[in-house]
Amino acid sequence: MNVAKTAAVLGLAYGMAFFVGVRAQQPAGDGPRYAGTALVRPAEYREWVFLSAGLGMNYNAPSPGAPPPTRQFFTNVFVNPSSHRSFMQTGKWPDKTMLVLEIRASSGDGSINKAGRFQTTVAGMEVHVKDARFPDGWAFFSFAGGKDMAEPLSGENVAPCVACHVEHAAVERTFGQFYPTILDAARRMGTLKPGF
Amino acid sequence: MNVAKTAAVLGLAYGMAFFVGVRAQQPAGDGPRYAGTALVRPAEYREWVFLSAGLGMNYNAPSPGAPPPTRQFFTNVFVNPSSHRSFMQTGKWPDKTMLVLEIRASSGDGSINKAGRFQTTVAGMEVHVKDARFPDGWAFFSFAGGKDMAEPLSGENVAPCVACHVEHAAVERTFGQFYPTILDAARRMGTLKPGF
Repeated sequence: MNVAKTAAVLGLAYGMAFFVGVRAQQPAGDGPRYAGTALVRPAEYREWVFLSAGLGMNYNAPSPGAPPPTRQFFTNVFVNPSSHRSFMQTGKWPDKTMLVLEIRASSGDGSINKAGRFQTTVAGMEVHVKDARFPDGWAFFSFAGGKDMAEPLSGENVAPCVACHVEHAAVERTFGQFYPTILDAARRMGTLKPGF
Repeated sequence: MNVAKTAAVLGLAYGMAFFVGVRAQQPAGDGPRYAGTALVRPAEYREWVFLSAGLGMNYNAPSPGAPPPTRQFFTNVFVNPSSHRSFMQTGKWPDKTMLVLEIRASSGDGSINKAGRFQTTVAGMEVHVKDARFPDGWAFFSFAGGKDMAEPLSGENVAPCVACHVEHAAVERTFGQFYPTILDAARRMGTLKPGF
């Protein structure tokens, strides 16, 4: 092989390595971004992997005799794609996992619909992040009101959420019992908590 | 520039062009695949872009005096990512768009849940494809029973679906009126049908 050919092959190899490198780094690019201690609102979460949706779910029993709620909200859950890929292979959430809970108002009355409910406007957005930077390994954030950054929730605001996730989550701190594809993967991988 | 250096640069350029070419082709890779006239079940649709979910939706009014349905189904809608990207830029569905309707059973009773409903097992899957290979430009497919391939629905099975989508869809043949982010994008782009 002459010098020119060798150099060309090395150049090609370098080009390949460069692009493979760029592509290999991309998945990590969908993880959390911080401004100081605040989490930056993930702008692209609607293109992330959808886990499931609920309607009108509530973990607290209604008070006896209370009227049914006048409004019912859908709750859509999304996860960043690189963490989802990792979960599907291991049954565990890698560091830098972000789960977004998007809360949407619902309507039954619109266009040709005659029964049931469909989703309308965004009513809230919460994010649950697994990151070794937090003392607990996980943190909750609320982006209520469409704000661009949020500090980790702390103190009494979030203590009941943390306690409930620690006690009742099927997979680490996450409610995999309500996300069918996650439940299946964790069952296959043997990473469900006892009792599930 | 000596020969070796020139060759190395050309090799790098070739490497770049090769990988840019590969990446540029990837978006088209999420479109429909056929085996003869049958559509191959899109295996990765759960990683596609989620458009919205409904619960218990029905376009037909219940019969007077009929009891409420004993089972309520969630309907999740996903679209292939390259077509979604294109829609967000143009407000139009490009050729080779695939919308997947995943039908899931629901439960209200599980784990700590006390009200509302969450998603459980897959109960059906339908696909709506825009492709110039069909006389009408669009075709419906049903993958009921988890089959791997499906012929386009035809005749009386699908005529009411087609007629309803032609008459009532907000965006081309699709019910964008029930997908909030699509509705917003089409409104912004001026591609909603009159009346929406």
